[in-house]
Amino acid sequence: MSTTPLREPGDSIYYEDGVLFLLDQTLLPTSEVLLELDTHDQVVDAIRRLAVRGAMAIGVAGAYGVVLGAISAGSSEPGVVRRAARVAIQEIGASRPTARNLFWALERMDAVLQRGASDTTTELIARLRGEADAVALDTIETNRSLVECGQELIGEGAVAITHCNSGPLAALRYGTAVGVLMEAHRRGKSPHVYVDETRPLLQGSRLTAWELGRAGVAYTLICDGMAADVMRAGKADLVITGADRIAANGDSANKIGTYGLALAAHAHDIPFYIAAPFSTVDPACPGGDAITIEERDPDEVRYCAGAPVAPPSAPVYNPAFDVTPAGLIAGIVTEHGVLRPPYTESLLER
Amino acid sequence: MSTTPLREPGDSIYYEDGVLFLLDQTLLPTSEVLLELDTHDQVVDAIRRLAVRGAMAIGVAGAYGVVLGAISAGSSEPGVVRRAARVAIQEIGASRPTARNLFWALERMDAVLQRGASDTTTELIARLRGEADAVALDTIETNRSLVECGQELIGEGAVAITHCNSGPLAALRYGTAVGVLMEAHRRGKSPHVYVDETRPLLQGSRLTAWELGRAGVAYTLICDGMAADVMRAGKADLVITGADRIAANGDSANKIGTYGLALAAHAHDIPFYIAAPFSTVDPACPGGDAITIEERDPDEVRYCAGAPVAPPSAPVYNPAFDVTPAGLIAGIVTEHGVLRPPYTESLLER
Repeated sequence: MSTTPLREPGDSIYYEDGVLFLLDQTLLPTSEVLLELDTHDQVVDAIRRLAVRGAMAIGVAGAYGVVLGAISAGSSEPGVVRRAARVAIQEIGASRPTARNLFWALERMDAVLQRGASDTTTELIARLRGEADAVALDTIETNRSLVECGQELIGEGAVAITHCNSGPLAALRYGTAVGVLMEAHRRGKSPHVYVDETRPLLQGSRLTAWELGRAGVAYTLICDGMAADVMRAGKADLVITGADRIAANGDSANKIGTYGLALAAHAHDIPFYIAAPFSTVDPACPGGDAITIEERDPDEVRYCAGAPVAPPSAPVYNPAFDVTPAGLIAGIVTEHGVLRPPYTESLLER
Repeated sequence: MSTTPLREPGDSIYYEDGVLFLLDQTLLPTSEVLLELDTHDQVVDAIRRLAVRGAMAIGVAGAYGVVLGAISAGSSEPGVVRRAARVAIQEIGASRPTARNLFWALERMDAVLQRGASDTTTELIARLRGEADAVALDTIETNRSLVECGQELIGEGAVAITHCNSGPLAALRYGTAVGVLMEAHRRGKSPHVYVDETRPLLQGSRLTAWELGRAGVAYTLICDGMAADVMRAGKADLVITGADRIAANGDSANKIGTYGLALAAHAHDIPFYIAAPFSTVDPACPGGDAITIEERDPDEVRYCAGAPVAPPSAPVYNPAFDVTPAGLIAGIVTEHGVLRPPYTESLLER
């Protein structure tokens, strides 16, 4: 059994006595507000409005949301509680379509409901709670392995470009892509990170810059359109990002803007890496074309940090993700090592 | 002689009786405020803070700024006025380093000072005013030709992606790249324009979207990181942008983000065009590496529309422009036709 402690100081997600605590990511870096959620509806809302975001973080939040759904049924009837948990799974699952890890977590919670038909309510809730804890612990352990495995890609003084946020906020304690760079820093490799601000919701400037700054990792903030220029100037050794869903052939969905970054890296012969655990892989999805891409509210583009920046009724296209084809990906950092192409084979070999 | 009227309704820059009127581009699209400038210092400030921007627009504003410098010397001594005009040329020339057209306009004003050594103050000011008017008229005529020449690139129902602003606000009345698309609309070709918002200063969402909307041209606003995804989905037929300086070999400096857009277009076999008049060409500049790139205030990246979006002291890289190498440019639309590679030859042939 794992000996990972379930809560450490600084954790941005944790559960205690029927309450899920979430650091509200929409308010960073200006204010650090801890949300206290006690119903699954509140979890759905927090996921939708990105108070919690990052593929793995929403997986963990979703798992605890099912526990909250079961508890807030407020019944001593196991059948009622079971139905409430199923409703929670369904509604949390409908919150955001793209991240694979949320469905991985919800499938685990659903499997708990399939077992122990003669459970009392107390037993059922305890088992749901135990499974949500296991999802959290597995996520932490997985990411600890992943950031270790990624070290082979990061040389002394390496300069990396990253997009969006894939640090501890997105993926519990260790993070993925940004986690690999933070681990390199802890090991004294002195990495430098160019951080894409990541419009429209600025997860790079608001979250990644904040996390790197707190961890003492050297970084430079840029607008998304500046990354190609950084590459052309010969300043970058590698590009590394997280992923929200990886198809069986290695095509990877990640935050909108990742694909353009991968194209620029390719044009400059700079390796582009994805860092994501196996729970991000969707074996049922043959390739990127089959990945459902969430389109979000046009006002995310018409406004920036609450201020209007376009004509109020400007027609907008606002996909939350894009797909980087496997052919542009030099390696996928997982908790079992760095996978190399062809991914149709390496993704099956774990 | 040209019969272009010097002022038409809707013009965003015009001069009357010792006052230069400028539509303040920093306040669009939220408010339409006309600045009234009567000293060259105010013109320098307006150029620096981008109240007037766009390579050709700052050329015209700069030319009138020299007139204001001469008038506000407030002297009947031609020598004093001449010196004041020279100071104005120097200080306006130091306002922003990248756009070629500003220097082209200032060189014309300087040539006026070289002539007519026996001029009275009144004659000198009249000749300066006449030259500034000529710069404005030439700019308008040039752009009228340019948008006509660009029509061969725009088919019926063409879908274009553009970056930053190169419409009438940037280039007096007709514009350049966006002007080509507006002219296509006037000719009934029903173009559709994907508008990159263009961080950090959002000239795309604030200015281009506003101009296209007013002109009735169909458009869709996107964040800069979405353009590659639009191309991948097969939605775009061409990319067209303006330029601030074109080297003798065709390498073109334009708003930061243009280079990444050109790389993405290349990867998708979508033609990438520059639209800019010959006054943008710097024959003394052999290639892109010799173009001085302005770096601007880090707060432009740390803030968005006045709101903080990053840690307050985040280290930032904020170049205002990047260089797209000639090899990625399928054609350069000028007032004398569409130039094709090799540009070292076609740029000399006008």
